[in-house]
Amino acid sequence: MAYVSLETPGKVARTTPPNFIRKVRPAHLRHLLSARAIDIDDVDEFCEAAQAYECGLAPASVSAGKTVALLFFQPSTRTRIGFEAATVALGCHSIGMEDMTASRSNARTAESLEDCAAVISRLCDILVVRHHENGAADRMAAKSQVPVINAGDGWNEHPTQALIDIFAMRRGLGTIAGRSIAFGGDPRGRTVRSLVQLLRFEAPKEIVFCPPPHHDVPADVLSAVGENQIRCRIIADIEHALCDCDAIMMAPYDMSDIGEPAASGYVSPQTTPDTHVITAEKIERTGSKALLYHPLPRQDEIDPSCDDLPNAMYFEQVRLSKFMRMAVLDRALAAK
Amino acid sequence: MAYVSLETPGKVARTTPPNFIRKVRPAHLRHLLSARAIDIDDVDEFCEAAQAYECGLAPASVSAGKTVALLFFQPSTRTRIGFEAATVALGCHSIGMEDMTASRSNARTAESLEDCAAVISRLCDILVVRHHENGAADRMAAKSQVPVINAGDGWNEHPTQALIDIFAMRRGLGTIAGRSIAFGGDPRGRTVRSLVQLLRFEAPKEIVFCPPPHHDVPADVLSAVGENQIRCRIIADIEHALCDCDAIMMAPYDMSDIGEPAASGYVSPQTTPDTHVITAEKIERTGSKALLYHPLPRQDEIDPSCDDLPNAMYFEQVRLSKFMRMAVLDRALAAK
Amino acid sequence: MAYVSLETPGKVARTTPPNFIRKVRPAHLRHLLSARAIDIDDVDEFCEAAQAYECGLAPASVSAGKTVALLFFQPSTRTRIGFEAATVALGCHSIGMEDMTASRSNARTAESLEDCAAVISRLCDILVVRHHENGAADRMAAKSQVPVINAGDGWNEHPTQALIDIFAMRRGLGTIAGRSIAFGGDPRGRTVRSLVQLLRFEAPKEIVFCPPPHHDVPADVLSAVGENQIRCRIIADIEHALCDCDAIMMAPYDMSDIGEPAASGYVSPQTTPDTHVITAEKIERTGSKALLYHPLPRQDEIDPSCDDLPNAMYFEQVRLSKFMRMAVLDRALAAK
Repeated sequence: MAYVSLETPGKVARTTPPNFIRKVRPAHLRHLLSARAIDIDDVDEFCEAAQAYECGLAPASVSAGKTVALLFFQPSTRTRIGFEAATVALGCHSIGMEDMTASRSNARTAESLEDCAAVISRLCDILVVRHHENGAADRMAAKSQVPVINAGDGWNEHPTQALIDIFAMRRGLGTIAGRSIAFGGDPRGRTVRSLVQLLRFEAPKEIVFCPPPHHDVPADVLSAVGENQIRCRIIADIEHALCDCDAIMMAPYDMSDIGEPAASGYVSPQTTPDTHVITAEKIERTGSKALLYHPLPRQDEIDPSCDDLPNAMYFEQVRLSKFMRMAVLDRALAAK
Repeated sequence: MAYVSLETPGKVARTTPPNFIRKVRPAHLRHLLSARAIDIDDVDEFCEAAQAYECGLAPASVSAGKTVALLFFQPSTRTRIGFEAATVALGCHSIGMEDMTASRSNARTAESLEDCAAVISRLCDILVVRHHENGAADRMAAKSQVPVINAGDGWNEHPTQALIDIFAMRRGLGTIAGRSIAFGGDPRGRTVRSLVQLLRFEAPKEIVFCPPPHHDVPADVLSAVGENQIRCRIIADIEHALCDCDAIMMAPYDMSDIGEPAASGYVSPQTTPDTHVITAEKIERTGSKALLYHPLPRQDEIDPSCDDLPNAMYFEQVRLSKFMRMAVLDRALAAK
Repeated sequence: MAYVSLETPGKVARTTPPNFIRKVRPAHLRHLLSARAIDIDDVDEFCEAAQAYECGLAPASVSAGKTVALLFFQPSTRTRIGFEAATVALGCHSIGMEDMTASRSNARTAESLEDCAAVISRLCDILVVRHHENGAADRMAAKSQVPVINAGDGWNEHPTQALIDIFAMRRGLGTIAGRSIAFGGDPRGRTVRSLVQLLRFEAPKEIVFCPPPHHDVPADVLSAVGENQIRCRIIADIEHALCDCDAIMMAPYDMSDIGEPAASGYVSPQTTPDTHVITAEKIERTGSKALLYHPLPRQDEIDPSCDDLPNAMYFEQVRLSKFMRMAVLDRALAAK
């Protein structure tokens, strides 16, 4: 991608610690299925492109006029609308289903995800997929004629959200290198798994988890942190993160419903204990400068009293998301 | 707005009776939440713009390329599709959800309307909102970064429908001034409340209500009529309106479901007593020249036998709606 | 239509047998409601236009900028997304509802199909309708101000699918004339009824049905075949079709749910007996060269083991569908 050269405010030096594994970049990165397949050059390139779009400095997209299929088998507001907004901003067209569970590509007529991919990929230039099953995007990619973007698959991954999070953290912190990054709420979510993969390259000082007592941090998440020699701590009260950390990525306290089909009716518990809630009172009392991020939607883990504080970055994170999604779509479409 | 100058057929003189309250127009009318915030100059301006769009005489819209988010938390056909058609005709792009109750911005994950507005307003240029709760659009406007259009909130208001109604009545009657305007059906609906606000400026001779016996005309609707010294009558049989009135704005006989969530399953009674039904037979027998309007959908209160009579204005009203919605969107987008 | 002249690979000579009824072509073919209203010249013209779109040789569409309303009262993936993709490719805009059962044009508020057509046709340039009731598209056409395309009505017809099928069969077989064409699966479906109408003009050697034992081929389908003196056979095992036929149009084994409202919850049986299933093993064992078509979605009647065989035409059929839908939309919009 030949984007206009820009000094990215939050861009870290590309000289990463020698123990970071540098993957050989495939000639045509067609799909974006997992944050594991993204390396530091990718992240830098995506962030530079996103910033160019934000500033209106990006060249005319090669993607203009292409067709983006949005296939959401699981409800979504911001991811779906964010991809739609990015599609429009690139001069592309979105087609698809906002609720694929109402289409014939579901259990009722038993069409497989593979057939759905084979079919729809013959009618568009890219597939953006959200599904409640782990590995759904991989299964569709195996049969798709066009690139597939994983917009969240069950408990597994949400790589575009992770790119957005990195972009927004670099913006807020200047650099993530040497900083202490906390995760509040359910550590089992797909956004945590994807973000930790990308944080490996950012050389943070430490990663701190503040999980609910009944949900352990998944072993693969802990090992991703450990294998990159990033310090890792578990804390029991989010107030410790407010005192000690530079940024806190919050999530709902219990996301047990994330792997449920839309029609299951299962609703996760919705009351977060005070030890895992951030309020303006706690921020003011502790004098915390920690920046607050959240993939949203929130439940009660960040009190609305925080919204007007300078700590609150979660709505700015949404604004930035459009530019990152433009970068993701444009690169995948250009690869076609 | 510098629209091409046009003689609007149904336009009333701007010299309104001195007892009409003339509000100071805000510098930037960002939101369109209530018909109460619209004055006679607004109405004239909207009608002129709508007519310019109808005639193809409007200048290239300043809105072209902007993004309109359609957020429908309550089912809709014509309002939703009408706004989509207007969006397309302005060269804008629509994004959003046709059924927001299926998105994550709902009770299932407990995202507030405020957060929904904060989020989506960072991804688009305007929000168009329908919701089953009174005041939903106001709540979203409080947190939105962009203008909010109320496309119907519970029992409260539906201001764009009222502008459409005025545009269509001026077109059909030449002028509303001095005319007798009747309301048939449930007088508690949001379209009645909004339209009565705008009728204040049009100087009708009288406003006649023909409500079901069990549903009173709301006090605030009656007082809006009264404070502008418009004569008001209640009648018990719609046939009296056919005989006496120049235009009849019909509505379903019982709209008790309008304040219900989409999933409630509540269905209003659907059989209208003969005293509140308009048929071709009644029109022919009475020789009525009354023009028939309806925000639609109708149930059985206007019999399809009326559809081909010259009295029937309700489908023409739909055709005109597109141009008024273009005017509303364009003005709100220009204000941004 | 003045399309670029092209040699259509699968085009049959226009000199059809003298016993084929040639209908006088209406000056303005506004609606596309039934394959019965399409004659051989129409089919040729549609196929030539579709091929011109495929090759990028079609002139700039007269339809660009027009608005296509997609009204799907019954769930759909490929038809809905196919029409969206075709709309975008023509430079048109799609509006509408992916699930009209969630709109107010449904039983809940009792709006008739006629009113829905009267309303929405005043806001767009063409209606594309799918519905679970036979005759729904005809009812809407009676009140529409713009052309109506039947995208599947209950058990009745699906004429655009039939055009796609002919286009794909001509492509695969070179010509349908003199070939043996089989139908596997439920013979009561709307795609069968529509396709048999169009096959009348193609002069196949014979039409072979392999229906489930409990569902007869509908009498009107058999008589359409018979009145054109096409040989007709019924077989009990799809393996006979693999041995004897040039092309097999498969369908699910039991489509009893096709006439059900979306909310009915009725699910057809989903296990197909081995006598009605095509597998790679059967193809290899019989050495069959029969080309496999399917309107999709499939259930288990074509095993995925067939997908990579040269016999499999069903995904290519999807790719071709976009160009045929462009041809259908463009002709209907040009007729307006």
